[in-house]
Amino acid sequence: MRSMTAMTDNQGTATGTDTVTVAVAGATGYAGGEILRLLLGHPRYADGTLKIGALTGNSNAGQGVDTLMPHLPQLADRVIEPTSPETLAGHDVVFLGLPHGFSAEIGSALPEETLVLDCAADFRLRNADDWTKYYGGEHAGSWPYGIPEIPGRREEIAAAKRIAVPGCFPTGATLAALPAVAHELVEPRLNVVSITGVSGAGKKANVDLLGAETMGSLKAYNTAGKHRHTPEMVQNLSEVTEKDVKVSFTPVLAPLPRGILTTVTAPLTEGMTEDEARGVYAEYYAGEPFIHLLPKGVQPQTQNVVGSNMCHVQVEVDQDAGMLLATSAIDNLTKGTGGAAVQCMNIALAEMGFNETDGLPRAAVAP
Amino acid sequence: MRSMTAMTDNQGTATGTDTVTVAVAGATGYAGGEILRLLLGHPRYADGTLKIGALTGNSNAGQGVDTLMPHLPQLADRVIEPTSPETLAGHDVVFLGLPHGFSAEIGSALPEETLVLDCAADFRLRNADDWTKYYGGEHAGSWPYGIPEIPGRREEIAAAKRIAVPGCFPTGATLAALPAVAHELVEPRLNVVSITGVSGAGKKANVDLLGAETMGSLKAYNTAGKHRHTPEMVQNLSEVTEKDVKVSFTPVLAPLPRGILTTVTAPLTEGMTEDEARGVYAEYYAGEPFIHLLPKGVQPQTQNVVGSNMCHVQVEVDQDAGMLLATSAIDNLTKGTGGAAVQCMNIALAEMGFNETDGLPRAAVAP
Amino acid sequence: MRSMTAMTDNQGTATGTDTVTVAVAGATGYAGGEILRLLLGHPRYADGTLKIGALTGNSNAGQGVDTLMPHLPQLADRVIEPTSPETLAGHDVVFLGLPHGFSAEIGSALPEETLVLDCAADFRLRNADDWTKYYGGEHAGSWPYGIPEIPGRREEIAAAKRIAVPGCFPTGATLAALPAVAHELVEPRLNVVSITGVSGAGKKANVDLLGAETMGSLKAYNTAGKHRHTPEMVQNLSEVTEKDVKVSFTPVLAPLPRGILTTVTAPLTEGMTEDEARGVYAEYYAGEPFIHLLPKGVQPQTQNVVGSNMCHVQVEVDQDAGMLLATSAIDNLTKGTGGAAVQCMNIALAEMGFNETDGLPRAAVAP
Amino acid sequence: MRSMTAMTDNQGTATGTDTVTVAVAGATGYAGGEILRLLLGHPRYADGTLKIGALTGNSNAGQGVDTLMPHLPQLADRVIEPTSPETLAGHDVVFLGLPHGFSAEIGSALPEETLVLDCAADFRLRNADDWTKYYGGEHAGSWPYGIPEIPGRREEIAAAKRIAVPGCFPTGATLAALPAVAHELVEPRLNVVSITGVSGAGKKANVDLLGAETMGSLKAYNTAGKHRHTPEMVQNLSEVTEKDVKVSFTPVLAPLPRGILTTVTAPLTEGMTEDEARGVYAEYYAGEPFIHLLPKGVQPQTQNVVGSNMCHVQVEVDQDAGMLLATSAIDNLTKGTGGAAVQCMNIALAEMGFNETDGLPRAAVAP
Repeated sequence: MRSMTAMTDNQGTATGTDTVTVAVAGATGYAGGEILRLLLGHPRYADGTLKIGALTGNSNAGQGVDTLMPHLPQLADRVIEPTSPETLAGHDVVFLGLPHGFSAEIGSALPEETLVLDCAADFRLRNADDWTKYYGGEHAGSWPYGIPEIPGRREEIAAAKRIAVPGCFPTGATLAALPAVAHELVEPRLNVVSITGVSGAGKKANVDLLGAETMGSLKAYNTAGKHRHTPEMVQNLSEVTEKDVKVSFTPVLAPLPRGILTTVTAPLTEGMTEDEARGVYAEYYAGEPFIHLLPKGVQPQTQNVVGSNMCHVQVEVDQDAGMLLATSAIDNLTKGTGGAAVQCMNIALAEMGFNETDGLPRAAVAP
Repeated sequence: MRSMTAMTDNQGTATGTDTVTVAVAGATGYAGGEILRLLLGHPRYADGTLKIGALTGNSNAGQGVDTLMPHLPQLADRVIEPTSPETLAGHDVVFLGLPHGFSAEIGSALPEETLVLDCAADFRLRNADDWTKYYGGEHAGSWPYGIPEIPGRREEIAAAKRIAVPGCFPTGATLAALPAVAHELVEPRLNVVSITGVSGAGKKANVDLLGAETMGSLKAYNTAGKHRHTPEMVQNLSEVTEKDVKVSFTPVLAPLPRGILTTVTAPLTEGMTEDEARGVYAEYYAGEPFIHLLPKGVQPQTQNVVGSNMCHVQVEVDQDAGMLLATSAIDNLTKGTGGAAVQCMNIALAEMGFNETDGLPRAAVAP
Repeated sequence: MRSMTAMTDNQGTATGTDTVTVAVAGATGYAGGEILRLLLGHPRYADGTLKIGALTGNSNAGQGVDTLMPHLPQLADRVIEPTSPETLAGHDVVFLGLPHGFSAEIGSALPEETLVLDCAADFRLRNADDWTKYYGGEHAGSWPYGIPEIPGRREEIAAAKRIAVPGCFPTGATLAALPAVAHELVEPRLNVVSITGVSGAGKKANVDLLGAETMGSLKAYNTAGKHRHTPEMVQNLSEVTEKDVKVSFTPVLAPLPRGILTTVTAPLTEGMTEDEARGVYAEYYAGEPFIHLLPKGVQPQTQNVVGSNMCHVQVEVDQDAGMLLATSAIDNLTKGTGGAAVQCMNIALAEMGFNETDGLPRAAVAP
Repeated sequence: MRSMTAMTDNQGTATGTDTVTVAVAGATGYAGGEILRLLLGHPRYADGTLKIGALTGNSNAGQGVDTLMPHLPQLADRVIEPTSPETLAGHDVVFLGLPHGFSAEIGSALPEETLVLDCAADFRLRNADDWTKYYGGEHAGSWPYGIPEIPGRREEIAAAKRIAVPGCFPTGATLAALPAVAHELVEPRLNVVSITGVSGAGKKANVDLLGAETMGSLKAYNTAGKHRHTPEMVQNLSEVTEKDVKVSFTPVLAPLPRGILTTVTAPLTEGMTEDEARGVYAEYYAGEPFIHLLPKGVQPQTQNVVGSNMCHVQVEVDQDAGMLLATSAIDNLTKGTGGAAVQCMNIALAEMGFNETDGLPRAAVAP
C-alpha cells in the first residue's frame, strides 16, 4: 500500500510500501472519535505501520482537534478538513462516520482499491424493500456485513474492500440470540428489549437528548416496530435458521453515556434445560476473542465492557414461564460501532500482518 | 379516633376526636422517608387533623432526624425510637417500612382497631405455596391488596384495617397490562422487562449498590423467574381473566435514583388494532386520578412522574411482530410504595373526611 | 382582583373579586414548568382562589401541554399561546420565564397594576455599567430584588408590582455568605465555587449540554470573572457591609438534573471561632422559613433540597488555613428560580390572604 | 530479574532473565483493578516480558476473578489468594492496593530487592507529626514520592525500590498549582475545591456511598482542614517555594464514577497577566507526556481524561477579583492512582527497557 506524503503523527518511522494510511470521515462525531481513540492505541500505529491521515467534518471543517476533541491530545495539532472524495483520496483505508444517505454518496465515490468501512446504515440491509420501508428513498445496495461472529462473515470480511459496520442494537441482540436461534433452543419469535446509553443517539443538538432531559429518566422510543434496526436483527438471525424469524424490538434510553444491555426472551423448545443451553452457547462462541460467556449466576453489566470491544453474554432458562432469556452487554461505541469497524479493518488487512484483536481492549474501564 | 397526648409538630390546632395520629415504623428507610414527605404535604396535616407521632428505627434508634434525614426539616427535632409494639401503640394509623418477616411480626402484634399499612411483602400473596417458594418460611396470611385501580380493590381497602401495600414492580406491570389482559387484547403470556432506579433496592450497605458500581452501568438481576415480585404480578392479572397467566419477568437496575419504566409485550389477539386497544385503555382507566394514558406518540418517561403518585401509560400495536406493547412509568417510591400507602390510607379514612387524592402530587418534579 | 372569563382548571369554585389569575410566559421552559408545578400544588389553587390562565411560548405556540409537558397532567388539555402583551393581558399576575432582552421588552409592555415577576436578568442589576459590561446593550432599569432573606427586601417585595427574581448562583452564594459578611466574620474577598446541575443551563438545543457530553463529566465554565452572575453576588453582599466586596466566581457543571452546591471561602477575621460563627448564622436566619442551618457535622447535600424551596446552610472554620467555609445547597429550579418567584408572589399578595410559605415544599424529594 | 515458575497468562513467550513478574495485593479493589487493566494493555505484557502473578485479597480470597471482576476476561481463570508476605514473595514487582496501616505492615515485610509501589497513604508524608495528626498512630516512614512531574522526583523514582503512589486529590491540585507557586505567580495561600467521582471512596459497603445517596446529589465532606490529603498538598507545593504554603481544601462528592476536577484560586501577584501565566505553564510542563495545557478558552473536562493517564490543565487570570485560577482534570483511578503507579513502575524499570509511557493511554474514553 501507498504511504501518504506528509504525516504529522509523532509515531514510529515505518515508511514506504509497509504503511497503511487511514482517513476518518465524520471524525468529530462519536463513531469517528471512538475509531480514532482505538487507532491511537493500535500496535501498528505504535510501530509506525498505520498512519492517521485526513480527519474530516462538515460544520466543523477548519477548526482544530485541540478544541473539538481534547480527549485526543496526540492529534491536538490537526485541523478538520471538509468531507469530500477529494480530501479522502489517497488513503488506503477510509472509515465513514457520516449520516446515512451522505455515507452512500461518499462511499460510492471512493476508489475500488480503498478499504471502506461504513458506520452508517446505507449498505447493511440486503432487502431493498426493507430499506425503503424503514429509511425511505432508494436502496444503495449491500456490502459484506461486519459481525465476524456470524458464521461465514469473517471470511467474507477478509476478502472485502467494502464493509458495512453493523448497527449497535443489532450487534447486541444478534450476539445474544444467535446460538439459541441456530440450535433451535427457542421458537424464533423474539422479544428484544435493549437499553442504551445516550451516546447512541449521536452528537447532535436535540432538546430531547439534553442532559436535563435524559439524566434522571428512562424512556422507550421508536417502539412497536418503528426502530430501523429491527430488520437488521431479522436479517442476521434469519441466516442461521430456516424458520421465519419475528422480532418485537423495544429500545429504551437510559442515563449513562455508553453501553447497551440487551434482554432477549423467546419461547423455549420443550425439554430444553439451562445446562444444555449453556453448553450450546459455550461451544458456539468457543475461540471468539470478543465474546465472553459469563459464569452461571453472573449477569452482563455494561460497566464491565465500557471502552472494550467485548460482548458479555449470559443465557438462562425460565421453566415456569416457558422462556429462554439471553442477555448481552456491549459498549455501543466500541463493539457496537468503532471497535467493530477496527476489528473488520484488522481482518481485512490480515495480509499486512494485522491481527483481528490488535488495538481492541478486552479489559474494560470499570467502574 | 383518639389523639396522642403530646405532638410536637408545628401545625394546625385541631384536637380531640377529630385527629388522626400516625406512626411510621422504619422511618429512616426510603419507604418511610417517602411516606413522611407526603404526610408533611398532606392537607390534613396542614389543618392539624393528621398528627405525626412515633418514628421508629432499629440501628438508628436514639439518633435525631436532623442528622439522619436532613431533607425533612420540619421533623428536625424528632428522635428515632426503637421499633416495637409498645412504641407504635396508641396511634390510629401505623405505616410499616420494615424487612419482611419483621413486618409480619410487628403487624400481627398491633391492635385490631389500628389501621396498619404494610410496605413489606408479608401479606401480599394469597397463595401460601407461592410464599414458601419465593420467600421461604411460613406464610403469615394475606391482607387486602393496595392497588385500588384493580377492580374491586378500592371497596375492599375502604373497609379494611389491614392493607398490604403492593410491590413496586407489580404496580408498574399490573397497571400497564391490566386492561389488555382483562379485555383479551392479548394472550396472557407476558414478557415484562422493568427497568428501575437504585432506590428500589433500599438503603442497605451493599457493595453491588455503591454509586461506583451502579452509576455508569446497567444490569439485569434475579432473572428467569427468580424475582419475588413475579407471583404478585401473576396474582394481580389472574383476577381479571379466566385464562392461565404466565409472566416472564426481567428486572434491570439502571443509574437513576427513582423511577421504574416497565415494558410489557404479549401476543396480540388476531385483528386487534392500536385504536381499539387505546379505546379499551381509555375506558378502563376513565376517572382514575393517578393513571394518565398518554397521547398517541408520547412514551412514558420516568422523569415525568418523579415525586408524583402518577402512573403514565401507553399502549401500541406491532402488527409485524404480532405483539401488543404496553409501557408504564411510575416513581418506585411514590406510586410504587409510599404514595400507594398514603392513597390507601386516604381511602380507608374516607369517613374522617379524607379524599383519595389528598397530599398526593400529580405534577412531577421534572426535569 | 378580576377573574378571567374562561378558566378550564378542574379546581375549586371561588370566583369574582376573590380570584387571582396567573399567566406564565415561557411556560415550556424549565423555569416556567417549575412555576406551574408549584402553582398546581398551591393551596390557593386548590381552593379556587388562584386560577392558571395563559401559558405562552414561542416556537411551541399552538402545541398542546399534553405532549410538551407530560409531567403536568392537570394541564393536559391546555394549548400554548404565543408570547405577547396581548396574550398576557387581563391577568393579575404574570411570571416571565423568557430570555433576557425579550423579558425586558414584554415586562415593560404590561399594565402597571399587573404583578410581574421576571425570572430573567434584565432588572436585577442596579448599576447600568455592570449591565453593559456583562450583558451588553442598554440597561432596562432595576426592580425590587427577590431574595426576601436579604435585610429590607421582604418589605420592598411586599409593596411591589414588579419583582426581579434572582439568579440561581447568586441565591446560593448570597445565602451562604450573607451573615459572614454582615457580621464581619471574614474579609469580604470571597472565593465562590458553585457546582450546578444541568437544568440550570435551560432547555435549549446545544451540543455541549447533551446527555452524552454532561453525564460522566465535570467542567468549569465562564470562569475567571466571565460569568454574568458575578456582579449580582457583589451587589447583594455589598448591601450588608461598608467594605469593598470582591468575588472570585467559578461555576462548575456536574452530572445531575437539579441542584446547586456552593462553597464560599474567605479569610477569617482573627480570633473568630466556629462556635461564634455558628451563633451568628443561627441568629441571622432565625425565623426564616426556607433557610435551614444544619447541625454541626452535617454538610448540605443537594439531594436533600430537590423539589423544595429550602436553602440548607453550613458554616465552619479552618484555623490552619485561616479561612471560613460557608456552604449551601438549593434546588436551582425551586429556591433558585421558580420557588423564589412563587415566594415573592405570595409576599406581594399578602393582602389577598396569601402566606409566604404557601405551596412551597420544605420537605425534599430524596433520594 | 527472575521469572516465576508458573504463569498462566495467555501472552508472549519471553522467559528467563528477561521477565518481570508482578503481583497485585488488594487486586479486587478499584486501585488494584485499574492497575490490572493497565498491565493487560501494557506492551511488555503483550510481548511476554511482564507476567502477572499473584492476585490477592482478604474477604475475597478463594473466589474467582471471573465472578469478582468480569471486566478483566483475560484473568477469568485466576483465583484470589490471601494477602500475605508469603503469597507476594517471589515477584519482582508488587503493587499494594491495601488500606493504610495494613499497607505499611505488608510493605515492610517484602524483600528489599522487590520493587514495591504502595497506593495507600502510609509512606507519603515526610513529617511524622502530620501523619499522627491526620491518620493517628505511629508514622511508618516515607518513601520516594510518585509524582514524576515534581522537579527532582523522576530521578528519585528511577533509583527507587520503594515508591509511595500519591493521593488522587494531591495529584490534581499539585499539577494545577505547581507552576504558579514555583514561579510566584500567586501568593501561596491556595483555595482548592476538588470535585470527585464516587470511585475515589473505594469499594466498601457504606450507606453514604450507595447509588441512591450519591446519584442525584452533590455533597462536600471532610471540609475545613479535615481531609487527610491536605498535608500532602502542602508538602508537594512547599518543595518549589521558600514561602509558607497554606491550603484550604474542600472536597466535593459528585455523581460520576470516575474523574476529579480541581479548581485552585490564589491571590494574584501584582501585574501578572494571563498570557504570562500561560507562558509559565507551557514552559514548566514542556515535554511532560501526561500533562496537556489546554488551548485558551477550553476548560478541563473530566470526560476528556477518563481511562487515560493524562492531566489536563488550564490557567486563567481574573483581574477584577485579583485571583489566578488554575484548573485540572484527571481520572482519579488512572493518573490519580493506578496509572501513576504503572508510570512509576515504568520509570523504575527503565533498565529493563520499559518506557515511562508504556501501557498508559493518552486518549480518553469519551464521551
